[in-house]
Amino acid sequence: MLKEIAGGVCAPKGFKANGIHCGIRKNKIKKDLALIVSDVRCNAACVYTTNLVKGAPILVTQQHVADGKAQAVIVNSGNANTCNADGVEIAQKMCALVEEYTGISAEDIVIASTGVIGQPLSVEPIAKGMKALVEGLGEHSEAAAEAIMTTDTVKKEIAVSFELDGKECRIGAVCKGVGMICPNMATMLMFITTDAAISSEMLQRAISADVKGSLNMLSVDRDTSTNDTLAILASGLAGNREITAPDANYRTFCRALRTVTTEMCRKLAADGEGATKLIECSVTGAASLKTARLCAKSVINSNLVKAAMFGADANWGRVLCALGYSGAKIDPDKVGVVFHSAAGDVEVCRGGRGVEFSEVLAKKVLSEQEIDILVSLGNGRYHATAWGCDLTYDYVKINGDYRT
Amino acid sequence: MLKEIAGGVCAPKGFKANGIHCGIRKNKIKKDLALIVSDVRCNAACVYTTNLVKGAPILVTQQHVADGKAQAVIVNSGNANTCNADGVEIAQKMCALVEEYTGISAEDIVIASTGVIGQPLSVEPIAKGMKALVEGLGEHSEAAAEAIMTTDTVKKEIAVSFELDGKECRIGAVCKGVGMICPNMATMLMFITTDAAISSEMLQRAISADVKGSLNMLSVDRDTSTNDTLAILASGLAGNREITAPDANYRTFCRALRTVTTEMCRKLAADGEGATKLIECSVTGAASLKTARLCAKSVINSNLVKAAMFGADANWGRVLCALGYSGAKIDPDKVGVVFHSAAGDVEVCRGGRGVEFSEVLAKKVLSEQEIDILVSLGNGRYHATAWGCDLTYDYVKINGDYRT
Repeated sequence: MLKEIAGGVCAPKGFKANGIHCGIRKNKIKKDLALIVSDVRCNAACVYTTNLVKGAPILVTQQHVADGKAQAVIVNSGNANTCNADGVEIAQKMCALVEEYTGISAEDIVIASTGVIGQPLSVEPIAKGMKALVEGLGEHSEAAAEAIMTTDTVKKEIAVSFELDGKECRIGAVCKGVGMICPNMATMLMFITTDAAISSEMLQRAISADVKGSLNMLSVDRDTSTNDTLAILASGLAGNREITAPDANYRTFCRALRTVTTEMCRKLAADGEGATKLIECSVTGAASLKTARLCAKSVINSNLVKAAMFGADANWGRVLCALGYSGAKIDPDKVGVVFHSAAGDVEVCRGGRGVEFSEVLAKKVLSEQEIDILVSLGNGRYHATAWGCDLTYDYVKINGDYRT
Repeated sequence: MLKEIAGGVCAPKGFKANGIHCGIRKNKIKKDLALIVSDVRCNAACVYTTNLVKGAPILVTQQHVADGKAQAVIVNSGNANTCNADGVEIAQKMCALVEEYTGISAEDIVIASTGVIGQPLSVEPIAKGMKALVEGLGEHSEAAAEAIMTTDTVKKEIAVSFELDGKECRIGAVCKGVGMICPNMATMLMFITTDAAISSEMLQRAISADVKGSLNMLSVDRDTSTNDTLAILASGLAGNREITAPDANYRTFCRALRTVTTEMCRKLAADGEGATKLIECSVTGAASLKTARLCAKSVINSNLVKAAMFGADANWGRVLCALGYSGAKIDPDKVGVVFHSAAGDVEVCRGGRGVEFSEVLAKKVLSEQEIDILVSLGNGRYHATAWGCDLTYDYVKINGDYRT
């Protein structure tokens, strides 16, 4: 019943979007300003980075959604508006500009910025571009997805439909993020729209729970960003009875939400800075969910595992090593490891010891673009999945000179 | 009074060493077997990795030094003897071989292995090489330092002399470690000798305290190894009154020890896999020692900071970002950052905000081989230093295909 549909954040009823190049990025034509608006005031919920150094836009958004309501999202790329003396003032000015051109109260606007930290953000190009941005609003989820990209190489959007009370509901999303990606209670930037009717309280509960198994299990480089923001706006226009309790409809909504966030995690990981491969680590047989998650994340975070995956080298000892320092209580003598991809399976470790395997097959399996590292702990019934990517020359290149 | 001297682990009275190529490494002439012996039975203390996946040699060493005594150290490179079904048996055989040729009881032997995880280690080349290894024992600290190297590009040894009760005492050390380096209560492999007379109990206390501010503050890639071992042997031949309490002589000994371990940390970091630069992060003005250490280590561990250092890019926002997610309680609005090197100082952040600086000077400062990142938290009197290196193409290259 759950199916993927087109339209991104504009798929749910009531949402329009747009993205333009306004000039925050010098000498470039890449879009740098995005706007998502709803026809009606929405229930809204957000989660943010846990980094103590927080972008100014986050401080402003926190105030604006304190009442659980929002109607628009304004986002710029090319500058994180973080560690700037006038950051909050600039973020407020951006919201005031949206109010001026759309009539939506500044207090109902979610704002986010992404790019270099610690460089003053001029409001000038944003002021100049706002008219065109608002006039061009339409079914342009793709333009919005493009405008929030930094070193991303592909646009990231998705939409799904599902049923509540016999009414078709939709959830759409756009996101960005390639480096400084190790979300903790939030991701880089992700904006989700839905026309399902759901109270602000249940919406917050749904995404706060969701990120623990989705975005918090994603890591490109273990650097938790200063600007991570996930915002969800629910227009309620699908016509279902508003979800106000953790009932069956809530669970249906959460499953659809998880489909969206998980798919976005895979897109984010696959497009990690410099990545040539999506690495998925699935841990089963854990004594607790915490253990499963710690282990999966630890494997995904290991520079040595990541470099081995880049080189298609079945160096499974590094997986064991990462499990061992994960902080989780595991029994090394029960650990099994299998590398899996479209090219097949290769078992490399059983009971904590190496098993003989074909290096030729291993090379083939690890030369695919999507690699699963399947870890069994032999200790219980809990499982978890984490997403990441390989560590490549291009990651070093991109980050050796990001500012210029 | 404390001065650096020649001789490495053979500088203290009573110690001989050697290193040979016995054939653990196929088709290579690099030395792969090292031995350090003392003329007398020594007080000994060790610290090991906290990784739950532990190398078999560690299990054997733990038993052997349970009585606080040891007389020899046998080490092989080229194979970590970890995650092998017969690992403990092989390690015991290696100790028995040392007993056979030296007469030193196997129970008094520290053993360590380093190299690939999960590949069976044959005792054969070791058995064949033992005679030559023992016969060649002498003032060959350098040969031992060379034999424990894996992808290290330089030998790492040091010795210092100092006085206790008017007697000249010495501490010498050799170590190795370039990747999978994020020691936690131990380092990759470090062996320290001293002729100072000090009880096993005080020796253990000294190194357990020392590593918190030295080896545990070192990180090449945040991957805590399965085989980290630091062992110290005290022959007592310097003739000072045995240290048996935390008195003034103990503190003098600890200062000399810290000089040795700190200098070794700098050598390890500078030779980090693929590294072109030694990065030292000094945090001052912290409200607690824990905060200072968390912050310094977080900066050193950040892939993004490391890549920026490789590119000589003064992207200080990444330093702030790393401080923010360090887990330490800091006030971002009080943070100051200065980049320092032989080429000068460049202040880039004050009060959590960017300050204008010369990009030309910054490039010059960051193009040196030793970079200090000076962080002031403005919040107290505690300070800490962590050591690391830049993230380079060569790190990826080395680790993309380590096994072949």
